[in-house]
Amino acid sequence: MSDTIATPAPASEAGQDGAIVLGDNQYGKAEVRVVKVDRDKPRHRITDLSVTSQLRGDFTVAHTQGDNSPVVATDTQKNTIFALAKDGVGSPEQFAMRLAEHFTSSFDWVTGGRWEVKEYTWEHIPTSLTTNASDGEHDHAFVKAGTETRTAVVQRDGDDVFVVAGLEDLSVLKSTGSEFHGFPRDRYTTLVETDDRILATSVTARWRYTTTDIDFNAAYDDVRRVMLETFADVHSLALQQTLYQMGKRVLETHPEIGEIKFSMPNLHHFLVDLAPFGLENPKEVFYAADRPYGLIEAEVKRSDVTPEPRAWATVTGFC
Amino acid sequence: MSDTIATPAPASEAGQDGAIVLGDNQYGKAEVRVVKVDRDKPRHRITDLSVTSQLRGDFTVAHTQGDNSPVVATDTQKNTIFALAKDGVGSPEQFAMRLAEHFTSSFDWVTGGRWEVKEYTWEHIPTSLTTNASDGEHDHAFVKAGTETRTAVVQRDGDDVFVVAGLEDLSVLKSTGSEFHGFPRDRYTTLVETDDRILATSVTARWRYTTTDIDFNAAYDDVRRVMLETFADVHSLALQQTLYQMGKRVLETHPEIGEIKFSMPNLHHFLVDLAPFGLENPKEVFYAADRPYGLIEAEVKRSDVTPEPRAWATVTGFC
Amino acid sequence: MSDTIATPAPASEAGQDGAIVLGDNQYGKAEVRVVKVDRDKPRHRITDLSVTSQLRGDFTVAHTQGDNSPVVATDTQKNTIFALAKDGVGSPEQFAMRLAEHFTSSFDWVTGGRWEVKEYTWEHIPTSLTTNASDGEHDHAFVKAGTETRTAVVQRDGDDVFVVAGLEDLSVLKSTGSEFHGFPRDRYTTLVETDDRILATSVTARWRYTTTDIDFNAAYDDVRRVMLETFADVHSLALQQTLYQMGKRVLETHPEIGEIKFSMPNLHHFLVDLAPFGLENPKEVFYAADRPYGLIEAEVKRSDVTPEPRAWATVTGFC
Amino acid sequence: MSDTIATPAPASEAGQDGAIVLGDNQYGKAEVRVVKVDRDKPRHRITDLSVTSQLRGDFTVAHTQGDNSPVVATDTQKNTIFALAKDGVGSPEQFAMRLAEHFTSSFDWVTGGRWEVKEYTWEHIPTSLTTNASDGEHDHAFVKAGTETRTAVVQRDGDDVFVVAGLEDLSVLKSTGSEFHGFPRDRYTTLVETDDRILATSVTARWRYTTTDIDFNAAYDDVRRVMLETFADVHSLALQQTLYQMGKRVLETHPEIGEIKFSMPNLHHFLVDLAPFGLENPKEVFYAADRPYGLIEAEVKRSDVTPEPRAWATVTGFC
Repeated sequence: MSDTIATPAPASEAGQDGAIVLGDNQYGKAEVRVVKVDRDKPRHRITDLSVTSQLRGDFTVAHTQGDNSPVVATDTQKNTIFALAKDGVGSPEQFAMRLAEHFTSSFDWVTGGRWEVKEYTWEHIPTSLTTNASDGEHDHAFVKAGTETRTAVVQRDGDDVFVVAGLEDLSVLKSTGSEFHGFPRDRYTTLVETDDRILATSVTARWRYTTTDIDFNAAYDDVRRVMLETFADVHSLALQQTLYQMGKRVLETHPEIGEIKFSMPNLHHFLVDLAPFGLENPKEVFYAADRPYGLIEAEVKRSDVTPEPRAWATVTGFC
Repeated sequence: MSDTIATPAPASEAGQDGAIVLGDNQYGKAEVRVVKVDRDKPRHRITDLSVTSQLRGDFTVAHTQGDNSPVVATDTQKNTIFALAKDGVGSPEQFAMRLAEHFTSSFDWVTGGRWEVKEYTWEHIPTSLTTNASDGEHDHAFVKAGTETRTAVVQRDGDDVFVVAGLEDLSVLKSTGSEFHGFPRDRYTTLVETDDRILATSVTARWRYTTTDIDFNAAYDDVRRVMLETFADVHSLALQQTLYQMGKRVLETHPEIGEIKFSMPNLHHFLVDLAPFGLENPKEVFYAADRPYGLIEAEVKRSDVTPEPRAWATVTGFC
Repeated sequence: MSDTIATPAPASEAGQDGAIVLGDNQYGKAEVRVVKVDRDKPRHRITDLSVTSQLRGDFTVAHTQGDNSPVVATDTQKNTIFALAKDGVGSPEQFAMRLAEHFTSSFDWVTGGRWEVKEYTWEHIPTSLTTNASDGEHDHAFVKAGTETRTAVVQRDGDDVFVVAGLEDLSVLKSTGSEFHGFPRDRYTTLVETDDRILATSVTARWRYTTTDIDFNAAYDDVRRVMLETFADVHSLALQQTLYQMGKRVLETHPEIGEIKFSMPNLHHFLVDLAPFGLENPKEVFYAADRPYGLIEAEVKRSDVTPEPRAWATVTGFC
Repeated sequence: MSDTIATPAPASEAGQDGAIVLGDNQYGKAEVRVVKVDRDKPRHRITDLSVTSQLRGDFTVAHTQGDNSPVVATDTQKNTIFALAKDGVGSPEQFAMRLAEHFTSSFDWVTGGRWEVKEYTWEHIPTSLTTNASDGEHDHAFVKAGTETRTAVVQRDGDDVFVVAGLEDLSVLKSTGSEFHGFPRDRYTTLVETDDRILATSVTARWRYTTTDIDFNAAYDDVRRVMLETFADVHSLALQQTLYQMGKRVLETHPEIGEIKFSMPNLHHFLVDLAPFGLENPKEVFYAADRPYGLIEAEVKRSDVTPEPRAWATVTGFC
């Protein structure tokens, strides 16, 4: 039952023209679901994370010869995530940076990597009862809040550290205050112009911090607030315009952010034609479609900030 | 390109011993995604629904002969849902009852059916800006709220109407105040007893109203409140106990409810063994497991209320 | 940090009018993912299962008092599933029956339960190589096959055993040989009649065996074959007719089956109107819609077989 | 009800230091579900696609001013997909290239874009009946095949066209012929070495063609075959080794491919410890875990092929 043993390429082959060689690579443990309870006070706090650790460096012999001598086991990476969580998480960004520091300082040949943290939000359960409660909230009982997931991707290349924060699936909708007209018409254009439509999207955004010396949790909360307020406030002539304004106001209020990228589906709500049934439909009854959907993606940036492609190389889902 | 035409059974066959016949059946349109905007005032309201309509009655010839003369097209059912939404939704329960009344009164041979409505919750976006806003909330911009989905299943059998309300995926967690011990041990038992564990679940609940003369929206909000408060409040010796108390308090506070059923997964959070790394773990670092999970299902009812199996026949996911 | 202790109802309350009491209940471990490798021969076989075990009996004190003395831990149920798999799985139906026998015979107060098994299908990887291969297939390398999942639900009530087999998500499509016309028209009807449409569905079916003395694996394979052949063969005037013929032919060829139930979505494929672009579309280009979809559910049964509601009580997703 | 009108930045601002400007952007219609039926012969063929079209070029005024004069509506892009499908799809790669040619040649300011096509595989239903059938297969009835999805991403930048083919979710498993040992051990390492384990993964692969003058469908089929055969054949000392061999053999047999990238989860199957129950477990009973999972990503390439970052810029899910 011994399968064919893969024969490694002779050493001389690697350099020859047309040789087949290993390119970029990374590996690790994905979606480690760790929940940290801070219980030093009666009012508990919980941090609910999904952590992915991926290492980069010289792992060639594992690929070409099945030699695992440099392969820090993905199981070891998982154990390390749990062990480091014992000291507290702080913020997703800080926790990812600690993991980056640990792995690159512990193993010579690990020269960098990628650490992604997703955080799910919980709120204390409101209660009218007073046992184990204060200010109308229970001390150690929680209900999951909102639809969005907070994200952080930290990448490290030698001593360079890149921090990209973000959120996914923040579902928002405007029931008026959105138009769409003035677009070009060709032989395939049938869309009717409108000066009043529902605008709905599920925001995915990622932004790069140009410093690590900030309060990541406070910054996140405020970026989320600015995005929500701007989505609500902008009278939209195009989802592109709404997106751009959201990015612009985030950058205006957050000098520590170099650029921000958005991926925003246009979740169509079509006005239902009730005329066949003898009814008018003055923008009241809509059909929420699933697929296809519009998809608007753009980056808003500062003209004087140096691009940092390494920060974005594996931050997926964006142009 | 004519496939084999199905030959209907001769009329004499239906009555003979061992004949193959049609049993229970229903059909309709599923998951009609309708969004109703109430825009008569500056502060809009939106109702975001997924509606399923299924008709019952005598549709035998469609099955046995492909004769569609009794088949109210599922497309017609969809159109009807949109048309009736024009007059306002009210509550999921009321909207489902209106659909039931419409179909059973419009078509002689439609003697009943099943109408299920799911509602997704939206909140006005909080804002510090004042344009189109009042009391710190935007008038016509919304953000999706919470993780749970409100549900209503109305079934009608002739003139009898059954209303089962509910919710799905209400995710809750207690970081302490939960024990589990005293269970029997056999040769396959390895579980260690605990007097302090995380208790987490995603509540699915359904309850039957014994009257239709109530404010369904107010009732829903209060049942949800009671369930959350009770989950938080009960010091749990078993998830079964928490479930039972949640049902008991709902029935105690809501005389209009005959019985309530729960399906509650026990979403395990295992304490991570950090001893191999020289660390203690005093209930601080947990691993959130996906599968398998415990699954606790039970009904809490009033001893003097007559069971109504027709109300529950197709309300799935419960014992 | 002690939450409110739930006070059990006094014994006298249970019998009084209007008392709140426990109704039907069951509990256990859900979705235990077990893979059994049969490796006694060079050509391995693998059985890939998701097993759910739920016990029924008298568990009242766990609910009312948090007394776990009768609660066979769900962890113990999981361990038992793994231990019994060591002896071989046989078929999903047989494995579920062994679990039923084990739990009801091991614990006096466990009077019945529900055991559901889902099986995922794997095929040996075809290969042109000869190492560890025979007849063009590799001995111990597999690729997942098909989209459907095989299911079995065994319920036990005292000494009575009920076996319902089935499958989920068998995706099929006919590109012609399907019509739909002759349906009634009312004020909400806009659908155009058609004598040639795409018919697509994802079959979920469940059937009850009236005996346990059969080769369950062979029966399953043949029922699946008959359903596929019949779907292909019937010239369809309604999805209801196709469904009925599928059930009829299964019952005609399988006397060991008492009745069969189907839930079949009508997955709409709408002909795209290309006329605005100056193109004809003779049934060539279709838009595959997501929601809403038609939903057709029916039972086909033998007129002389006694109904057995206990076999179907918790087999969900059907009328 | 007019929301705040977004004021465009004055023209002078764009050039000034620290100005906030638009970065990379693209937009279009996502997941257009088109099914093409080729029915010129009795034996039909169906092509089942999900097509995403995204345009690039100068769309600045839409973002900064809500001026839609350059915005080819996403609805128009959808219509174009349907209209072009009328002429036949050919292969996902060819269809995407036709869309690229259409949009870049039709609109001056559209200088490029991204077109992604996913294809779902269907097989003719095997049948023992002879009506509308030949060689044991039905002419126009189909069943969905396999678990994997074929993918193609075509990007165009001016006159440069990049074609990346691929597949997602090809689920494979070896029940023996896999070892893992020799990895480094640190204070966080607890994993035990093994010389016989289950190796399971769900292959996602993408490869770049260096020419467009090939039979894309034949190439796809053969790449898939080589990957499956190699996965089966390689006696694995590390999933990295299996991955590398899969890539190497694809490149060796397909000179038209410049490089190939893989993302392969290590879907852990843990041997269950049956010792507490007095049972041995000689690699027979495994627990299939969900999360966390290993994640191995790498590129295999030719040393003499010039890298083409533009081909991979938005091909996500890889390092």
